[in-house]
Amino acid sequence: MTTLLREINEQPSVLTDLLQAEWDNIQEIAREIISRRIRQVLIVARGSSDNAGVYAKYLLGIRNRLPVALAAPSMVTVYASPPRLHDTLVLAISQSGMSPDIAAVVADAREQGMMTVALTNQRESRLTGVAERLILCHAGQERSVAATKTYTATLLAVAMLSVALDGEADVGPDAGYDALLRVPEAVAQALALDATVAPAAERYRYMADCAVIARGYNYATAFELALKLKELTYVGANPYSSADFQHGPIAVVGKDYPVVLVAPSGKVFDEMATLACELVDRQAELLVISDRQEILDLAETALPLPLPLPEWLSPIAAIIPGQLLAYRLALAKRIDPEAPRGLQKVTETR
Amino acid sequence: MTTLLREINEQPSVLTDLLQAEWDNIQEIAREIISRRIRQVLIVARGSSDNAGVYAKYLLGIRNRLPVALAAPSMVTVYASPPRLHDTLVLAISQSGMSPDIAAVVADAREQGMMTVALTNQRESRLTGVAERLILCHAGQERSVAATKTYTATLLAVAMLSVALDGEADVGPDAGYDALLRVPEAVAQALALDATVAPAAERYRYMADCAVIARGYNYATAFELALKLKELTYVGANPYSSADFQHGPIAVVGKDYPVVLVAPSGKVFDEMATLACELVDRQAELLVISDRQEILDLAETALPLPLPLPEWLSPIAAIIPGQLLAYRLALAKRIDPEAPRGLQKVTETR
Repeated sequence: MTTLLREINEQPSVLTDLLQAEWDNIQEIAREIISRRIRQVLIVARGSSDNAGVYAKYLLGIRNRLPVALAAPSMVTVYASPPRLHDTLVLAISQSGMSPDIAAVVADAREQGMMTVALTNQRESRLTGVAERLILCHAGQERSVAATKTYTATLLAVAMLSVALDGEADVGPDAGYDALLRVPEAVAQALALDATVAPAAERYRYMADCAVIARGYNYATAFELALKLKELTYVGANPYSSADFQHGPIAVVGKDYPVVLVAPSGKVFDEMATLACELVDRQAELLVISDRQEILDLAETALPLPLPLPEWLSPIAAIIPGQLLAYRLALAKRIDPEAPRGLQKVTETR
Repeated sequence: MTTLLREINEQPSVLTDLLQAEWDNIQEIAREIISRRIRQVLIVARGSSDNAGVYAKYLLGIRNRLPVALAAPSMVTVYASPPRLHDTLVLAISQSGMSPDIAAVVADAREQGMMTVALTNQRESRLTGVAERLILCHAGQERSVAATKTYTATLLAVAMLSVALDGEADVGPDAGYDALLRVPEAVAQALALDATVAPAAERYRYMADCAVIARGYNYATAFELALKLKELTYVGANPYSSADFQHGPIAVVGKDYPVVLVAPSGKVFDEMATLACELVDRQAELLVISDRQEILDLAETALPLPLPLPEWLSPIAAIIPGQLLAYRLALAKRIDPEAPRGLQKVTETR
């Protein structure tokens, strides 16, 4: 078994460990966020961590009603003129914690008196040297260049923070800590899709580019799935929200154009199903990740999610078939998934 | 001459008109922003207008030190749970003002007591019905599906707002109202590049996909150039910041992979030049938009900007060769630039 496939398969146990190991710490951080009267969040991240930041934008925005912005590090590192922050939590997300631009934004925010938290897989790094608080992914060392277990661990840590911020509020049976406990099993069941993905990948051996579409909570999944395809298979995969897609990019879709739809159950499902029908009319080639049969039936390649999660947690399981697809397609294309062209595990940008 | 090419060529006169017609109004809006003690900005937009929003994020962030976030309209329209806003200007950007999701975010912000401004090319629309204040593009009717003159007019309006917000502060010779006056001539001179672009487009007749890269102020240009290519030529064009590109997507670059670099003079130039050298080492096919000879010399297709602008205004001229490239490539591919597949001028999404 390759290192990458092993790390993909470690995800259920990593997520179980994380729930145990960080819940007390995350609750304490949530109490500090409330006591410091934080009114908005600035996320600073790159690559897969930035995609996790997109999930945080939706989850903290919708569930905790916190406006979330994504930082542009060049304002600090290149232009030396960062925005003036007020009542802001700066959440830096970085697997390695080593990119200088991420640490620079956190250092600036701290100088401005803001609360700073590092969400990372490394206890000691440039980033943890400057952030006040630390949330650890507990994913163990990730050796593969393509992030998998650190990505899903980061999403779960964000979800834990969102639940902790709700405090004592009654948010219903599917929105609290108990829902988090169902995530590892949903991820474990999704991993069984490898038996479907492995033969299906053959079909896309010569795919040049594709679109990856979702909306809402899974907008992050579209970005992360597209990034995995780019890193591991060199396919020019373009991520979109279903709404943005219709404001121009849909023009690229002609007969046989491949489109991956990430469409689990939830409030955006109907819109995704409508888009799927429109894409069928255009004779696009559909790959669909969903737990709903009516949209899976429209796909040339159906990737059924075995165990549904509430929509706000669905991105943690919905990325699994995407990770497997990128991995299996890399093998079909005779690309070494351990050594993607021109990438190192730790990327340092200023 | 096609309608699209005519509209592209109208840009210098549109920009001149805008400077005249809106300066007083924009100064008044700036005074209200200051008197209402606005501390951050939320931008809501789709398509090309969203790309203009990226420019606003950098310009208002770096120059006016205002944190800027981009709205996710689904939080209002799908999830009915928008973030709680404080001391926020909501700036809605929409050429037509007709998309229901944009108007819905503005209506919600207004209910929350926030200041709302519509930046649009239409005086009467869904959007102007809900926004308190109006900034008009004065671009005349835009008939082509692909936005060109409304895009550059929107950028200039944002730049005017940024200048107006500086008030009486001394911001140097190249940062005030006088610099704005140089924009129409720089755009006019860039239009002369059509003589270079038209024959160069032939070379990319069978290009399947490409990357478009910039950083800082011109990150918006990368997004808008990629969108023009997608709308008009169906090429899967992927926009990136040069920093994000190195955190994974650079893996797609092999021999002959086409990369468009938008690299005018400014603080990010050195980083872009370093990236250009790395891409040459990888034998990528470079198209470069710049006013600097040392990076143009690395390009297979050099698109020299004749009249440099200060970096913060450079995106308004740097998009021009991109518009021309998308237009000429559409013709080379025998695609009707007036009728891109599956698009209408006004897209209504919820």
